[in-house]
Amino acid sequence: MRNKNIYYYLGIVLLGFSLTLIFPMIVAIHYHEHINAFLVPLIITLVLGSILNLTIKKSGELYAKDGFIIVALSWIVISILSAIPYMLNCHLSFFDAFFESASGLSTTGASIMKDVEVLDKSILFWRSFTHFLGGMGVLAFVMAIIPLSKQDKSMHVLKAEMPGPNVAKLVPSLKKTLFFLYAIYIGLTLLEFILLLIGKTKVFDSMLICFGTAGTGGFSLLNSSIASYSTFSKWVIAIFMLLFGVNFNIYFLILMKDLKSVFKSEELRTYIIIYIIATTFVVLNTYKMFDSLNEAILNGAFHMSSFMTSTGYSIGNVNIFPTSCRIIVYLLMLVSACAGSTCGGFKMSRLIICYKKIKMDLTKLIHPNLVKEITFEGKRIDSDTIDSTTSFLLLYVLFLIVIMFIISFDPLNLNLSEIVNATFTTFANVGLCFDISNFSAFSNLSKMVLSTGMLLGRLELFPLIVLVTNIKKA
Amino acid sequence: MRNKNIYYYLGIVLLGFSLTLIFPMIVAIHYHEHINAFLVPLIITLVLGSILNLTIKKSGELYAKDGFIIVALSWIVISILSAIPYMLNCHLSFFDAFFESASGLSTTGASIMKDVEVLDKSILFWRSFTHFLGGMGVLAFVMAIIPLSKQDKSMHVLKAEMPGPNVAKLVPSLKKTLFFLYAIYIGLTLLEFILLLIGKTKVFDSMLICFGTAGTGGFSLLNSSIASYSTFSKWVIAIFMLLFGVNFNIYFLILMKDLKSVFKSEELRTYIIIYIIATTFVVLNTYKMFDSLNEAILNGAFHMSSFMTSTGYSIGNVNIFPTSCRIIVYLLMLVSACAGSTCGGFKMSRLIICYKKIKMDLTKLIHPNLVKEITFEGKRIDSDTIDSTTSFLLLYVLFLIVIMFIISFDPLNLNLSEIVNATFTTFANVGLCFDISNFSAFSNLSKMVLSTGMLLGRLELFPLIVLVTNIKKA
Repeated sequence: MRNKNIYYYLGIVLLGFSLTLIFPMIVAIHYHEHINAFLVPLIITLVLGSILNLTIKKSGELYAKDGFIIVALSWIVISILSAIPYMLNCHLSFFDAFFESASGLSTTGASIMKDVEVLDKSILFWRSFTHFLGGMGVLAFVMAIIPLSKQDKSMHVLKAEMPGPNVAKLVPSLKKTLFFLYAIYIGLTLLEFILLLIGKTKVFDSMLICFGTAGTGGFSLLNSSIASYSTFSKWVIAIFMLLFGVNFNIYFLILMKDLKSVFKSEELRTYIIIYIIATTFVVLNTYKMFDSLNEAILNGAFHMSSFMTSTGYSIGNVNIFPTSCRIIVYLLMLVSACAGSTCGGFKMSRLIICYKKIKMDLTKLIHPNLVKEITFEGKRIDSDTIDSTTSFLLLYVLFLIVIMFIISFDPLNLNLSEIVNATFTTFANVGLCFDISNFSAFSNLSKMVLSTGMLLGRLELFPLIVLVTNIKKA
Repeated sequence: MRNKNIYYYLGIVLLGFSLTLIFPMIVAIHYHEHINAFLVPLIITLVLGSILNLTIKKSGELYAKDGFIIVALSWIVISILSAIPYMLNCHLSFFDAFFESASGLSTTGASIMKDVEVLDKSILFWRSFTHFLGGMGVLAFVMAIIPLSKQDKSMHVLKAEMPGPNVAKLVPSLKKTLFFLYAIYIGLTLLEFILLLIGKTKVFDSMLICFGTAGTGGFSLLNSSIASYSTFSKWVIAIFMLLFGVNFNIYFLILMKDLKSVFKSEELRTYIIIYIIATTFVVLNTYKMFDSLNEAILNGAFHMSSFMTSTGYSIGNVNIFPTSCRIIVYLLMLVSACAGSTCGGFKMSRLIICYKKIKMDLTKLIHPNLVKEITFEGKRIDSDTIDSTTSFLLLYVLFLIVIMFIISFDPLNLNLSEIVNATFTTFANVGLCFDISNFSAFSNLSKMVLSTGMLLGRLELFPLIVLVTNIKKA
């Protein structure tokens, strides 16, 4: 890594991130809890950030490669720093704390906590707040609040952090794009917050649930997740999980009153159709286990929304799902919702591109001389995007297999189904899964691998791969 | 299907296939068993073939599409015809008989027979003989024995039936290519036969085991598969399974004394390295369960050879494999051995192409202006081959998922692991798997889906896909 800019940017990211630690401190003060757990990482972050920022001068261009490396390094460092509160306040080991921290920032929501109801309010807040931070992206957050010169060069950073095969700016200025994205993000979150208050959910609970919904995270402040809240609140959460799974470009189009483009969106249409089919299927296959059809529909709609958007909230026992429903859930988990949302997984748009590619190649096989092009959302997709999409899929499957393989050595002697559950739910940033309620019993090696998997999944592989290949070369 | 040539060729294939039914009749006569079970399908095949051959005149060109359709139709019709002996002799239902027949011809070796030792010798012979036929290809067999005019137009048929991403003729003439391939096939089979006789295996047993090894099938004539034969015979079978997993081009190069090209073969090298690593891994993880290291090595070497070449012979209980070994086995099953061999699965050469494609795309991501090419076995791979290889992989995974999904509805209420076992072992044409010893308990729907999966896997998807899409259009 010869490019000093990387460390310069890392410094800025750390300084920006240090601000986020102020919020849980306010909560701690409000509830008369200790603030040390947050003060210590705050000081470390400030010192580290200042050193990098003062000693290293920015020089030269920022290349695509550098964007990947900045994102990868920042996420690793921030995951370590945001694990400190868990170590200091909850006395967790580093591996446990890092798992919880990576799970929070990557918006996974898988936990090593056996009982979350005994935790301090400030820690509960921090867990959920990292979802909110990680959902839109830690670097996006920093870039939105800190003044940067030569803004457009930072597009490489945004591209590397934002999910989806094709990251486009909504408006010519990067700063304005980020402003719009954050306005939508915070606006939707506030709307959900108000609706939850109407649904008679407590203020603190509503706030934390909103963080989890917005970031599609899934950490909850009760051991029963969302089960004990009102039916109205459950429906609100189910719908908002779905809304945060929509590509934010759609909301921008709605704000611009371009409803024609909204209705024409292939990704949105596919997302809604798949959700409806999957939910109907699950309701049809589980309704006999519930007292009423209404309950079965709420259960199906909520959990499918939760799985598909990689949120991971739950309102009941999902282990009752028969194997056919589980297979559907696995597929939804891996594919997840739209690109440009806060969801994990492979993304709907990539699925559509792969589907069209297969169709084109099959046509080519039968009519070798036919020249066809792939279009998506009305635009021609160039062959580089198609290539990187299929390569992403192959790498995605490869990483899934590698993680499953390493987890199979866990002393818990997991069976295939448990390995699939643990791997899919972390790698696709879901957090909820069958048969496993928390990850405390896993070995440190497994925890480390699953934590890495969560970050890999959230950053869509490439940043960490570029980082590792560059460390090798250096 | 407007092209009449399709039916003309189907007629020829049927006439050719009818000859193969003479062999089990000879066995039946020799062992004083009923010949009706074979005489009936022989007459049906002859009549059907003659009608098609006499009423339809060949006209016009044969296109790539037609090649696929001929292969798909032929395999379906022949699978049905070769199921008749099981229905007449063993009184199996159509679904059971079709499963057994598809399993034989597709060289899978998964069985619905609970006790094979009570079967007539002629039926045992027929089961194994279908492996031998299906291994090299039913149409290749017909094309090798029946005189065809305009031979080279039939290349489309051969391409559609032969496994691998790139089917090349060894010599300019198709007829001569087939001659060489069959000479190698029969030569290796005879060599194994002689060695098994030296290993004190009975003549009838040796013959049937050789059919199964050559076609990488796996039907056996004892309930314990290969467990009761001598250690020498077990080693011979282990090695010959591996040999039949090698691309037959390699043997042609050896016959041509072009050893330099043999040593340079990427596919052969990768195949051997993966086999050695997988076997070492399994031996290291299972040796404690055996009385001696020798036994553990034989067990590991035999079963890895059997899984990797999609043969499916067994010399002991594979259920003792821990989950980590099972994951390795699943991967070996799905990838299988070399293209241009008699194995099932995705094939080593496709794996190498996919690996190189990912590598190239990752490089492109970091250095967008770099132009790189993929070479395989010293030759440049064009983008159409790369595209059809990745599409094949995507389709391969898609079909696996679809089959697993349908199987999940089986009244047996299978768990995920059992579904994976049943699907992988049939779709990859292996036959051996964990926890399931035979498929008799499955529902008719499951049997039908798994049978179709076996044919899809053997024909590498495209022929059946082209057939179905053309039926729709017609």
